Amino acid sequence: MNKIVTIGREFGSGGRELGRRLAEELGAAYYDKEIVSEIAKRTELSEQYVQSIVERKPVVLYPIHVGRSFYPALDTVAEQNAAIYARQHEIIREMADRSDCVIVGRCADFILRDKDPLRLFVYADMPSKIARCRQKAPEGEARYSDRKLARMIKKIDAERAHYYYFYTGRKWGDPLNFDVCVNTTQQEIKALAKAIARLCD
Amino acid sequence: MNKIVTIGREFGSGGRELGRRLAEELGAAYYDKEIVSEIAKRTELSEQYVQSIVERKPVVLYPIHVGRSFYPALDTVAEQNAAIYARQHEIIREMADRSDCVIVGRCADFILRDKDPLRLFVYADMPSKIARCRQKAPEGEARYSDRKLARMIKKIDAERAHYYYFYTGRKWGDPLNFDVCVNTTQQEIKALAKAIARLCD
Repeated sequence: MNKIVTIGREFGSGGRELGRRLAEELGAAYYDKEIVSEIAKRTELSEQYVQSIVERKPVVLYPIHVGRSFYPALDTVAEQNAAIYARQHEIIREMADRSDCVIVGRCADFILRDKDPLRLFVYADMPSKIARCRQKAPEGEARYSDRKLARMIKKIDAERAHYYYFYTGRKWGDPLNFDVCVNTTQQEIKALAKAIARLCD
Repeated sequence: MNKIVTIGREFGSGGRELGRRLAEELGAAYYDKEIVSEIAKRTELSEQYVQSIVERKPVVLYPIHVGRSFYPALDTVAEQNAAIYARQHEIIREMADRSDCVIVGRCADFILRDKDPLRLFVYADMPSKIARCRQKAPEGEARYSDRKLARMIKKIDAERAHYYYFYTGRKWGDPLNFDVCVNTTQQEIKALAKAIARLCD
């Protein structure tokens, strides 16, 4: 069976960088935005549009896991969201079948739960997350106040939590849904990736 | 500087076994009940008595970190608790100065925070914790119902949380107080210890 690592992460925690470096260390494929591109290809929707839906608050209010058949999709937007999630599900499973891989976000821990992935969660304290966001932000956002960045970070994580709950019925970031949780506060991601890679041997 | 690992753990999560095996892997000293014996020696109290106080709910209601000088100890029992904590503090720092070591519980993560320890937290889901407790329990307790064991586990963890908060002012088990949190649900501790040891290289 392929070696699969899934990464859940708080916004600004460096989870994406950790995933990329971990994949390098392991000689595994790395999937993050590639998933969006692939969905766009298969659905003929624009990447920008798919990105705006993936991991954002879903439009319909009824969780997909609770008797979905009782709640038919309410409109075409909701139908499109469901179709995109279905494509994502299919693509993530294909990717996991293809080779060793590291997959960031997108409920991959849940979607691949029968494949026994190493499920990581990456988190950090707010000052570190603000500092990381500022470092990586486009010029405009980099000038935001700490307060504004903190608000933005919380909003994005709330959307991820909502998305995760909607499709999995689980609480986002609950340590029991992960094998190992890693605190990146004041840590250098590069060194951390090397250490974490050793967990996968 | 010595390599120091501190382990916080939920009752029944196998944190103690993980600590012991980790110390073996690292060739480091392992301290757990040894701390109690050492306190007993230095205070001339019985080990049993010290054990009954260490990591249990403290008697005084005022947290030690909040303006302790405003609240003189209320009685001799409270004074004894404070004296035992002070001895424990002193012993843990001596142990950390002596050699590489793994220290389980007893606020060691907080007491040694200036020595940059690797701070682990070990947790598991309730069914695993119940199963581990039953396996290790004395014959009488092993026959307890799941419900009774779950109640016992929750009570012990609540006492640890209270103790931790009392002496550190921090929330027990908060992931931000740890570098790595490890889920032992359905994991073999021996294999896990080998993997975690690699994080310490």
